[in-house]
Amino acid sequence: MATLYHVPLSPFCRKVRLSLAEKKIECELMEERYWEQDPDFLRRNPAGKIPVLKIDGMTLSESSAICEYLEETRPDVALLPEDPVGRYEVRRLVAWFDDKFHNEVTSNLVYERVNKKIMGQGYPDSKNVKTGAQKIKYHLDYMAWLLDQRRWLAGDVMTLADFAAAAHLSSLDYISDVDWNRSEVVKDWYAKIKSRPAFRGILADQVPGFPPPSHYADLDF
Amino acid sequence: MATLYHVPLSPFCRKVRLSLAEKKIECELMEERYWEQDPDFLRRNPAGKIPVLKIDGMTLSESSAICEYLEETRPDVALLPEDPVGRYEVRRLVAWFDDKFHNEVTSNLVYERVNKKIMGQGYPDSKNVKTGAQKIKYHLDYMAWLLDQRRWLAGDVMTLADFAAAAHLSSLDYISDVDWNRSEVVKDWYAKIKSRPAFRGILADQVPGFPPPSHYADLDF
Repeated sequence: MATLYHVPLSPFCRKVRLSLAEKKIECELMEERYWEQDPDFLRRNPAGKIPVLKIDGMTLSESSAICEYLEETRPDVALLPEDPVGRYEVRRLVAWFDDKFHNEVTSNLVYERVNKKIMGQGYPDSKNVKTGAQKIKYHLDYMAWLLDQRRWLAGDVMTLADFAAAAHLSSLDYISDVDWNRSEVVKDWYAKIKSRPAFRGILADQVPGFPPPSHYADLDF
Repeated sequence: MATLYHVPLSPFCRKVRLSLAEKKIECELMEERYWEQDPDFLRRNPAGKIPVLKIDGMTLSESSAICEYLEETRPDVALLPEDPVGRYEVRRLVAWFDDKFHNEVTSNLVYERVNKKIMGQGYPDSKNVKTGAQKIKYHLDYMAWLLDQRRWLAGDVMTLADFAAAAHLSSLDYISDVDWNRSEVVKDWYAKIKSRPAFRGILADQVPGFPPPSHYADLDF
């Protein structure tokens, strides 16, 4: 069986967890306090980051490289379309969320409010929290603009782009930082993806000291 | 003909330029002062970043999504191997350089010394420059460790991983921030990649106010 070294609210780990679950790949989850830079962990991944996936006798790192590997070796449940233009659009959006959205929103909110406390790095910087709370509005509007034209973020089928976006938004939703009233189409999209069996593990997450709000696991939020 | 909106020392643009040149795709280069957030440019890429590539009647952004698209539509000159494990290793290393190396080294050196001045953001922060100069040593050692076991960074053939690494190192070499005496194998690897025809455009770059050192374009450095 595969093993994933992760932390519960990491959007990069959640993207991989969603891919594994959607493809029905059995996987054991191991929480990894990666910031302690344990020598055993650094041997598994010299980059010192999570997620790290043990699978097929190998130890893999870098979430996007992992997801492409799963896609190429387990193509039965496809998370990338077949045509190069469609595949480009999925990869562009995955990079949008994992780079731009992450830097502007997730790191200003989840990392400030949760990671800092867990890692013993002090209190949230209110300037960063304010920036994150401002910037998420612009991103939700961009998602609404995409979803006005498409059933899913990258086109008419669900792809890795939806998982990347849902990974970030679900982490933010765990700390009540998403205003679902801002856009009906974005809320509908999240309700759709949240009700997939692949999402169950993520909705069951519990971070000690940070109980999730009641709407977090509610499919009818 | 394709058009690439870029800035000369951006490692992400250089990675795309190397892919285009290696695949012999004719492309016009347009310098883009992306930090001025010109409305015309934001229409081409709402993320407001470079590179942006006009090709096949489309406007593409995100360097790794662009490179995968070029790979899928122009596979004759292959920059990814065929087997999933080899492809994974290339993608892992591209992410290593574009994320970890970029954050620890390139942004602390090229952005502090060059981009800040061009963008009118003041003087380099000496603490960041010192961090970058320290961290590059660890990365050169990691490359040496890889190259002790392999002809190229990701295996026995040249791939996108080599272009990603060379894109960062060539930008740093333009401001004399690479100590080529640290590792013989890394210097040999760079000499090999530097002498490829695809590298010529990059060696001809000139940034006003920042003349390159004489060894920069010298194949026998």
